[in-house]
Amino acid sequence: MIQIDHLIQDIELIRSQSPLIHNITNYVVMNNTANALLAIGASPVMAHSIDEVADMAGIASALVINIGTLEKAWVEAIIVAGKTASANHIPVIFDPVGAGATPYRTAVCRQIIADCKPSVIRGNASEIMALGDTGLQTKGVDSTSSSDAAIETAKAVALQTRAVVVISGQTDYITDGQQTEKVRNDDPFMARVTGMGCTATAITGAFAAINPDRLEAATHAMAVMGIAGKIATGKSRGTGSLQVNFLDELCNLDANTIRTHIKQ
Amino acid sequence: MIQIDHLIQDIELIRSQSPLIHNITNYVVMNNTANALLAIGASPVMAHSIDEVADMAGIASALVINIGTLEKAWVEAIIVAGKTASANHIPVIFDPVGAGATPYRTAVCRQIIADCKPSVIRGNASEIMALGDTGLQTKGVDSTSSSDAAIETAKAVALQTRAVVVISGQTDYITDGQQTEKVRNDDPFMARVTGMGCTATAITGAFAAINPDRLEAATHAMAVMGIAGKIATGKSRGTGSLQVNFLDELCNLDANTIRTHIKQ
Amino acid sequence: MIQIDHLIQDIELIRSQSPLIHNITNYVVMNNTANALLAIGASPVMAHSIDEVADMAGIASALVINIGTLEKAWVEAIIVAGKTASANHIPVIFDPVGAGATPYRTAVCRQIIADCKPSVIRGNASEIMALGDTGLQTKGVDSTSSSDAAIETAKAVALQTRAVVVISGQTDYITDGQQTEKVRNDDPFMARVTGMGCTATAITGAFAAINPDRLEAATHAMAVMGIAGKIATGKSRGTGSLQVNFLDELCNLDANTIRTHIKQ
Repeated sequence: MIQIDHLIQDIELIRSQSPLIHNITNYVVMNNTANALLAIGASPVMAHSIDEVADMAGIASALVINIGTLEKAWVEAIIVAGKTASANHIPVIFDPVGAGATPYRTAVCRQIIADCKPSVIRGNASEIMALGDTGLQTKGVDSTSSSDAAIETAKAVALQTRAVVVISGQTDYITDGQQTEKVRNDDPFMARVTGMGCTATAITGAFAAINPDRLEAATHAMAVMGIAGKIATGKSRGTGSLQVNFLDELCNLDANTIRTHIKQ
Repeated sequence: MIQIDHLIQDIELIRSQSPLIHNITNYVVMNNTANALLAIGASPVMAHSIDEVADMAGIASALVINIGTLEKAWVEAIIVAGKTASANHIPVIFDPVGAGATPYRTAVCRQIIADCKPSVIRGNASEIMALGDTGLQTKGVDSTSSSDAAIETAKAVALQTRAVVVISGQTDYITDGQQTEKVRNDDPFMARVTGMGCTATAITGAFAAINPDRLEAATHAMAVMGIAGKIATGKSRGTGSLQVNFLDELCNLDANTIRTHIKQ
Repeated sequence: MIQIDHLIQDIELIRSQSPLIHNITNYVVMNNTANALLAIGASPVMAHSIDEVADMAGIASALVINIGTLEKAWVEAIIVAGKTASANHIPVIFDPVGAGATPYRTAVCRQIIADCKPSVIRGNASEIMALGDTGLQTKGVDSTSSSDAAIETAKAVALQTRAVVVISGQTDYITDGQQTEKVRNDDPFMARVTGMGCTATAITGAFAAINPDRLEAATHAMAVMGIAGKIATGKSRGTGSLQVNFLDELCNLDANTIRTHIKQ
């Protein structure tokens, strides 16, 4: 259950503090996620060199790790950054893009979870299921499972890793293994824009940077994605205008809009 | 000559099967091409690590190779992915971005063609001419030749490589060396959006994934680019809105629109 | 003081000559900067492999270096490209993204300035201040200082490096250490789009490619950013539409628009 006043307060905190979010993410979505973080009010930085990731993670308010276009040197830097962040109690948000699609991806996901101790793991249903079952074969980076089918795995992964686990889909589930929140996003259109899941992960970094309650922070991020996505979808002819309108809605998100769209 | 019913059927097949298209492409266009593939109904994945490209190419329905921002490690991965795909009869679509601009680029293009055995090669006139003549110096990645001047070279390259060769320009030519198709795109405005050629190559991957007739698949891809591009151009004030409208048109492309724009 | 006729003439030169601008830039902004260069009329190429950067820089009319997502191999290629360009009297434009954020970034900036001898250095106030004072700690890539506070440092850096130094902000300052130009950009909204500074640097490359007066070229670039940015902001609901409108305005920039917006 979202407490609307908490969500509004979190957005105000992001806008007033403009927390630095260090992203080690994939080439496809770097631009989108930087713009989404700026639109919500955070300050993104993208840096992946082994020569600076520890320094950058050390001054950040959250670290976002996304393996969309992973390779060996990037994984090494991710581990260094993640260890630095978790040693300094800086929240680490992990997006296991394409987990299950290749053995390499699945193995890297397990290594990152073990070494970087993420506060939040966010993926689609297929990815979360692959984290719970190394034998699962997924198809690329788009989900082939429903969120409902993945919820039990998500709870198990949450309990095992002590991370909050988020399954994105038409219904988002956010769980720490014991308590589970739901956010409904009725429109499947968002899944046809590349990187919307990655954007959700980055936005989770912004909320986790200013709210120590990780279950609430992740739930707030999903709620914001849902509201901005729903309004933007209603104004859009296709996935081109949807991307433009989505950023505009993130910029303009205010208390009134939130109250209108979350009915309790 | 495009058979309209075949084109409509191909689009329906892409939308119903959502074929996985594995892209090893350049940093500049990754986002655009992923979004264009999603808009037409395919499922894109971008992966370039030597540790997973063979696995990813092996589960894909087409492999798209684009050397826009090439470097040594990427070329090695391209060769591994391309050999895996062609050994598994998965169509390889190759975009020789900037062929002729530097000796390195031209040499890499020849290696990729020899080792990966592409089903379709798509470039602008300068690039295709550089494939036929190693001595040609082109200027960066924008064409300095007309499509008409390159058609004889395209036929020769097609016969020599057994690939279908596509020259993009105000008129697109699609040839297997014996049969040549033409698609007219009257508006030069599209050339002022970065990566439109790369998008054409990626869309060719989507059609080749579901249509084994490579000449027809490539012709369909060029036709779709032309129709969506023409409608989008008519609605746009500049290259910013053109990109947005282009994706929207790809999303909304239906049988009626196709019949209206292809007169036979 | 901008001479309006000179600015209009420069834009006409860019559009008629379409100079090749070689960019070694960061992953986040490659697409934006390529599209901005195409919109103003230049021909962008992105290439970073050590195997071709000297060849590419050698045929370019300007080289744009941006360290946003730097790493060791890229820095090596930057140095080779920069030395080639400056040895061939091709203007080098340098964007010290995030200077001061990590010791590695600041050290690389100093190396690039020493080895590549940039004609123009463009950054935000924090970055320019970090170039003048190695001890300064900045926060990520967004400025935490005002342009006014950085102007004396900018003059000192200009005199020391013999580069024209540009500080972007609500007021842009362009200085060679002796003469200083100002361009006012009243709207802080542009700072919430990622890569607008990087775009300003790339556009500076287009002007420097056709105008040997580097102080004037850099001033013209800032003026064009300001005009297109102001008009686009007036038409936009948020940072999504701002990006679209900004590219459209660059495409449509003409003598009338310029005369209307620059009052002397």
